[in-house]
Amino acid sequence: MKINTLLSMFAPKDVKFFPMLEETASVLSQSSTYLQELFSCENAEHRNELCKLIKAEEVKGDKVTGSIIHELNNTFITPFDREDVHALADVMDDVIDTINRCAQKVLLYQPTSFPQHTITLVEIIKKGSDEILNAANELSNIKKTDLRLRAHCKEIKRLEEEADVVYEEAIMSLFKGATNNTYSAVELIKLKEIIQELEKAVNKINSTGKVITTILVKYA
Amino acid sequence: MKINTLLSMFAPKDVKFFPMLEETASVLSQSSTYLQELFSCENAEHRNELCKLIKAEEVKGDKVTGSIIHELNNTFITPFDREDVHALADVMDDVIDTINRCAQKVLLYQPTSFPQHTITLVEIIKKGSDEILNAANELSNIKKTDLRLRAHCKEIKRLEEEADVVYEEAIMSLFKGATNNTYSAVELIKLKEIIQELEKAVNKINSTGKVITTILVKYA
Amino acid sequence: MKINTLLSMFAPKDVKFFPMLEETASVLSQSSTYLQELFSCENAEHRNELCKLIKAEEVKGDKVTGSIIHELNNTFITPFDREDVHALADVMDDVIDTINRCAQKVLLYQPTSFPQHTITLVEIIKKGSDEILNAANELSNIKKTDLRLRAHCKEIKRLEEEADVVYEEAIMSLFKGATNNTYSAVELIKLKEIIQELEKAVNKINSTGKVITTILVKYA
Repeated sequence: MKINTLLSMFAPKDVKFFPMLEETASVLSQSSTYLQELFSCENAEHRNELCKLIKAEEVKGDKVTGSIIHELNNTFITPFDREDVHALADVMDDVIDTINRCAQKVLLYQPTSFPQHTITLVEIIKKGSDEILNAANELSNIKKTDLRLRAHCKEIKRLEEEADVVYEEAIMSLFKGATNNTYSAVELIKLKEIIQELEKAVNKINSTGKVITTILVKYA
Repeated sequence: MKINTLLSMFAPKDVKFFPMLEETASVLSQSSTYLQELFSCENAEHRNELCKLIKAEEVKGDKVTGSIIHELNNTFITPFDREDVHALADVMDDVIDTINRCAQKVLLYQPTSFPQHTITLVEIIKKGSDEILNAANELSNIKKTDLRLRAHCKEIKRLEEEADVVYEEAIMSLFKGATNNTYSAVELIKLKEIIQELEKAVNKINSTGKVITTILVKYA
Repeated sequence: MKINTLLSMFAPKDVKFFPMLEETASVLSQSSTYLQELFSCENAEHRNELCKLIKAEEVKGDKVTGSIIHELNNTFITPFDREDVHALADVMDDVIDTINRCAQKVLLYQPTSFPQHTITLVEIIKKGSDEILNAANELSNIKKTDLRLRAHCKEIKRLEEEADVVYEEAIMSLFKGATNNTYSAVELIKLKEIIQELEKAVNKINSTGKVITTILVKYA
């Protein structure tokens, strides 16, 4: 603590974390773009390709997060508290991991079709990811961008509430469909797990919004 | 640490955490009362109402837990260690969240019936929740109530062991029922998830008992 | 920190953690031996017995891990950082818990047969567990055994990659089997959960390898 305070008098404000956090957010946004493409794609081969691209983004995300944590362990001064950088990197990495798991489940389960609700959930994931990307790009200038940052966080929260309703409808209509034999029990199992994974992605996006809100409260 | 010790000589023992912990326990107990009502209710509309009431308790629980953590961050002196208050608030909130997830699954999946095993599990959840409430009400006077507190913790542990047996029977009989076509595969999926969520609630109640036991060992 | 450094000048290097970590690893290895037996056993009664033996190992594992953590809280000097001992004990305990959950699912669900993929996954779990046991036995002499330790960690990573492929094939062939009516939907539910639990065990073994690698980087 004392060392930190002392050094901060002599050292310039360390800004190398911002580009890294922005890179993570950009990987996140790219993953969600591929995911949206995956859910509108009917060609099996192209689906496989998209899943591989998402997996590649996940590997990239792991690498950037790893670098961030490595840097954190070797840096005295951070633009905002060490734990906040860590939390933000971690939670964005969680989103990327969850998006990857969504894609892998599509690849493994090969559902015969995507109900409209799943496509709506993926749209929300894409929108939420872009809010995160925009927020990440404004973090380095937090004193001036705080109003816009606040708006991004608010929109992420709104998207999560929207997704909650869609999720409930998705599950209910799935079970109704299975009872009416629109879906087989096997198809129900596939789609239920995919829908639950999509909902987890929305929740992780919402957690990211909360971390950014905490940072806003502390530093803006 | 030093500041803490110093202040404690001048400041009166801070007791505001006890009412807050008692409030959380009371929300928990109320949730479990509604849950038990839900599992004995056949009217769809009344079921929906009960699920909303449970959700409202969950929101209340979040709020109280949030206040507890906020207070912890702004208080020098606590009646027992900061981490213990935090752990107890957290784990009780986990129980409330899990009870809410049980209710939401009933709402979403709308199982055609509740097997006897699920009703027994809900009974155990209700009993365990009331043990927690009684324990929470005795915490503020721990030196005098330690014998009763110990009895509550012991009973919670016993209930968890009872639930383990019921859970195993529930799952086994469910799969047997599905093999004999007593249950459809879709009904199996619904009930299995509900039973697993009920079991999680029992486990979280047991974790609460463990946290209280730790507090007892330290302060009684 | 200062106390630690001071004491380490006078106190002999504390080595009591090594036998405890070795014991945990040995419980882990024994669990995986029973698990492999379970998956090649067709006699229902003997299966029950094996599940009980695995459960007994899990209880033993909990006890050793508990002692390790208790000792950590009462010891000034550790052979390597306190957190590393803690992390290694914890992650090995996670493997044991997951193996136990695999066995309990077999006991509860009583699948009619084990597809070849599940048997291959269990083989990988057994091999990985033995790599962990060998590594644990070499930890107390880390400066001399580092090359062998590195080899164990590398092999664990390779096994995890092998398991990833087997897992994907297992799930895909399961869903194909269910679509072709080779498996009923109920059998699919049973086997899918068992396969997913086996994969978790592999992941926890891989996490153990990562913890050992971290220790290697720090102390070898």
